[in-house]
Amino acid sequence: MTSILNAPAYPVSDALLARAATVIPNTMYGHQDARGLWPGAPQFVSRTSGSRIWDADGNEYIDLLCSWGPIIHGYQHPRIEEAVDRQRQLCDTANGPSEHFVALAEKLVGVVEHADWAMFAKNGSDVTTLCLTIARAHTGRGTILVEENTYHGALPWCNPDKTGVLASDRAGLAYYTYNDLASVEKLVAEHKGDLAGIIAAPFRHDPAGSDLELVDPSFAQGLRRICDENDAVLILDEVRTGFRMSFGGSWEQFGVRPDLSAWSKAIGNGYPVAAVMGAERLRSAAGSFFVTGTFWFSAVPMVAALASIALLEEQGGVAHMFAVGQRLVSGLQEQARSYSLPVNITGPVTMPYLSFAGETDHEFTLAWTAQCAARGVFSHPKHNWFMSTALTEADVDKVLTVTDAAFADVGRRYFSA
Amino acid sequence: MTSILNAPAYPVSDALLARAATVIPNTMYGHQDARGLWPGAPQFVSRTSGSRIWDADGNEYIDLLCSWGPIIHGYQHPRIEEAVDRQRQLCDTANGPSEHFVALAEKLVGVVEHADWAMFAKNGSDVTTLCLTIARAHTGRGTILVEENTYHGALPWCNPDKTGVLASDRAGLAYYTYNDLASVEKLVAEHKGDLAGIIAAPFRHDPAGSDLELVDPSFAQGLRRICDENDAVLILDEVRTGFRMSFGGSWEQFGVRPDLSAWSKAIGNGYPVAAVMGAERLRSAAGSFFVTGTFWFSAVPMVAALASIALLEEQGGVAHMFAVGQRLVSGLQEQARSYSLPVNITGPVTMPYLSFAGETDHEFTLAWTAQCAARGVFSHPKHNWFMSTALTEADVDKVLTVTDAAFADVGRRYFSA
Repeated sequence: MTSILNAPAYPVSDALLARAATVIPNTMYGHQDARGLWPGAPQFVSRTSGSRIWDADGNEYIDLLCSWGPIIHGYQHPRIEEAVDRQRQLCDTANGPSEHFVALAEKLVGVVEHADWAMFAKNGSDVTTLCLTIARAHTGRGTILVEENTYHGALPWCNPDKTGVLASDRAGLAYYTYNDLASVEKLVAEHKGDLAGIIAAPFRHDPAGSDLELVDPSFAQGLRRICDENDAVLILDEVRTGFRMSFGGSWEQFGVRPDLSAWSKAIGNGYPVAAVMGAERLRSAAGSFFVTGTFWFSAVPMVAALASIALLEEQGGVAHMFAVGQRLVSGLQEQARSYSLPVNITGPVTMPYLSFAGETDHEFTLAWTAQCAARGVFSHPKHNWFMSTALTEADVDKVLTVTDAAFADVGRRYFSA
Repeated sequence: MTSILNAPAYPVSDALLARAATVIPNTMYGHQDARGLWPGAPQFVSRTSGSRIWDADGNEYIDLLCSWGPIIHGYQHPRIEEAVDRQRQLCDTANGPSEHFVALAEKLVGVVEHADWAMFAKNGSDVTTLCLTIARAHTGRGTILVEENTYHGALPWCNPDKTGVLASDRAGLAYYTYNDLASVEKLVAEHKGDLAGIIAAPFRHDPAGSDLELVDPSFAQGLRRICDENDAVLILDEVRTGFRMSFGGSWEQFGVRPDLSAWSKAIGNGYPVAAVMGAERLRSAAGSFFVTGTFWFSAVPMVAALASIALLEEQGGVAHMFAVGQRLVSGLQEQARSYSLPVNITGPVTMPYLSFAGETDHEFTLAWTAQCAARGVFSHPKHNWFMSTALTEADVDKVLTVTDAAFADVGRRYFSA
């Protein structure tokens, strides 16, 4: 592919990868592993600013990945950084929380409709796990229903990779099919008497480059009804979706309020913080046990989150992300049609995923993404992208110029008669 | 106790607690919950600097807790903050790691004797969990031996609180007694053929105010031998102890190298980062599966860690912590003798824990700690303290003036004939 792309050299990245090979198992790990994308896919980031990133070799990109979600206002947003600067002079990680711990809980309770309280942690996995524990503590029952392929984190109970995982790590789970209420009803009948709760993502986002699937409102409503009928706990995993489907809970638009929700990525604009939010009836269970983490109470990410949420609120950030996302998705669909290319764009326009129909190993999507990257637009061939409030209409228009050329190239190479 | 202590009022803290009661389950959680200590125990921290902290009501303390471990050079150490300032201008959380990800792995491999590679995460629990997964992936076996009361984190498999936890969450574990090799041998025999590994803390630090117990070197050596004989993986949990027992691995002084070690607290001087380190033979297993976290690759904590480790190295930081720790512990022992008080000081002098013999609910230790706090020294009655390189001999002498008065008071109140 290198010759076709006429890819530039990446000497800095190559040198770093050679060093990484000696001190990091398998050189790199997790979704941040850029091998398996395209030759020259940026493995290392050396600079970020607003809607732009620069790789270790100095190549600039308009960034459509937003650090896999956290960057909701663009990198180093001045107002957030100013708040962080001020707080860093006072305190960050300390023997106890700062006043901002309380203020952030108050803010989230004010913004997220179903939430009467909040608890903070660090990783998305911390808070999805905590939701299961709270649901089990509340009900005194064990079984949690989970979508069969979804991603709720990388701990043994939820890691899609089962290497080193015991069957017992998942003994308390049973697996349903997204948007298939009958598959849920079947499990409820099988686990009658032991159903503690159901966890769901606000839309279906399975790992490894699957197309996205929006929730059928009747499915969301059905889960609510089933939980009510069985005194079970409805858990919404907002780690990926938080503040990108709504300024508030993602299923509020369908009239569905979960009992618990797990949040992380978009709360702090890149500063590490995660939150569980819950309804009043779960408060007692949530406060009934010991749970903690060394960095869970640090002040700086809380201050960043307060500034980030205030920005979203004051500037209508979610509406902006829907507007630029719609402009981008409409433009991409128009381009695909114009080249008669079988392109699927799925998911909310704030978190779209583009793939080519009929490919077997993402080969067309990879080629298209590589073409975009070579022209200065960073998206991802196997994961949904993320809009931010830093992405302007002018940025989208620049992106569309690049994507047009990428469609033309992929069409010529793979789809010409 | 309030009247006895002549405790000042804490109106700011009280007001924050009242707000917290409405938006945080049970008002506060985890080891950061300051209720159950003494009236006026600082729940909220408003400022930190060097070896000092200020509570929300503006009371200043010499801090002996160091944010439960992370603060190894004092709060906001200028050299670390400068490195952070520079990196924040470039990038922090991004689509991939920065070059500092590689540099930090190289540094740790250079410093920690048993380590041939490193992987990074965020919480201590992330990396203790990852060690279990790697051991199971490497051996293809399931059982991990764990000390019966120890603390390896707050996930279902290791949380000392079993509320909301299923029996199956711990199905792969069996429990030995610290410093009792026979109890380990017994489990090894029982789990013959399924032994994946043994996890141990470098010294015994059980939760909830137990005295500490140093490791018997023959116990450490015995665990190494047992793992070798059974092709099992020896895992050392250095989350609490890292860089406070040695500049390198904590059991190196006994000639014992683990196969895997889990680190977090003291790596980044308060910036959130955790690491697994491992020996060559575990590299392949560690690189054989998908694991990740949104904030695990962020650049700023890596830069903080590089600056923090360089400081430790250049300034002989570990030796300094042993020196001030010894000065403190010797002074405390001398004072306790002079008042004929039955005081136990256990653990390494860099992480001492002080308690009174013969108390039933920490009542004497609580009273002593409250007396110290009222005079401007913050320690903890139910958890070991932590020395830092910011604590000077002059600080220790100030602390000892305070502790002397506290011993006098407790002696008068509880131990006078």
